[in-house]
Amino acid sequence: MAETRTPDSTRRSERSRRAIYDAALSLVGEAGYGRTTIEGIAARAGVGKQTIYRWWPSKAEVLLEAFLERGGQAAESDPALPDTGDLEADLKQVLRATVDELTDPGFEIPYRALAAEGVINADLGAQFVRKLLEPGLQLYVDRLRAARDAGAIDPDVDPRVAVELLVGPLAHRWLLRTLPLTHAYADSLVEYALRGIAPR
Amino acid sequence: MAETRTPDSTRRSERSRRAIYDAALSLVGEAGYGRTTIEGIAARAGVGKQTIYRWWPSKAEVLLEAFLERGGQAAESDPALPDTGDLEADLKQVLRATVDELTDPGFEIPYRALAAEGVINADLGAQFVRKLLEPGLQLYVDRLRAARDAGAIDPDVDPRVAVELLVGPLAHRWLLRTLPLTHAYADSLVEYALRGIAPR
Repeated sequence: MAETRTPDSTRRSERSRRAIYDAALSLVGEAGYGRTTIEGIAARAGVGKQTIYRWWPSKAEVLLEAFLERGGQAAESDPALPDTGDLEADLKQVLRATVDELTDPGFEIPYRALAAEGVINADLGAQFVRKLLEPGLQLYVDRLRAARDAGAIDPDVDPRVAVELLVGPLAHRWLLRTLPLTHAYADSLVEYALRGIAPR
Repeated sequence: MAETRTPDSTRRSERSRRAIYDAALSLVGEAGYGRTTIEGIAARAGVGKQTIYRWWPSKAEVLLEAFLERGGQAAESDPALPDTGDLEADLKQVLRATVDELTDPGFEIPYRALAAEGVINADLGAQFVRKLLEPGLQLYVDRLRAARDAGAIDPDVDPRVAVELLVGPLAHRWLLRTLPLTHAYADSLVEYALRGIAPR
């Protein structure tokens, strides 16, 4: 029980938790999701495997929470999309940063594994969407609502659908590896999409 | 060797091939991709498992070719997108049909399994894209080129990127199950995207 824990034991389990997240992300990156086991994560994190089983039902949940913590840290430092008043510039900046993240091997390999697992495992997919994906999409929705209030986009446009014009093609190209994921592509998406939702 | 085959043995192996495709699609639909084995496919198709191993290196390739044959049959009967001269109506018709296909359980479950396998297995993913996905996207590109020649879209627009404004959000919503995949959503995508690529 948390109440009976000393500050020291709380610090120790916090340290274990972070070590487990780091171990899960690096192992999946090196060996692939299929060859990553709870035992392997425990060994690399320097904890007993029962510690992991006590906290998480499966390696998929360990990985999901590792990304949640990473995303949570990013959100604390920068909880909203930039709003300089120039919607096109702001969206290009965010979409280019997303391209950089999705093509960084240390991020890409485990994130791709988690996304693929969610594609076939509906329960995990629902958690992935609810905890990890939708909060990020909501930041775009908020930015587009602000733009709509400022008269920069058509008042009849559904911001949630408009967001998908930006992130859907990016995810499609990334997940299926159809064509290169570049800043130029991100810029084109922003330009086409913004013309599509401009005031009439 | 094919040259020494009698018409009867050619018919027999053609029949076996189709039985194997049907068995693979139905078994993945019922049991899931992970629990489908070459042995299971062979038993349901009424062939020896060596017959499958002789023709395909893995169950993923069996499934991919099953979809290729299905797609090939569809393409023979209808090799291009409709071109009534009304681009918006034509695209809505095709995108609605895609929604219907992606939400038909008999198609969805095995197709989703194949797509997810391609997300993590780069070799299979490349085959999936080259053989199955890109030929279908090319039909959209052809239709958009015809529309561009007819003055219905901006001559500076890259049709291959424009296609992704339509199919990317659809695939995103379908693969990640973020929100319902409906005809109304397909229609919105066509409307937003066409405004985005309209002549200036």
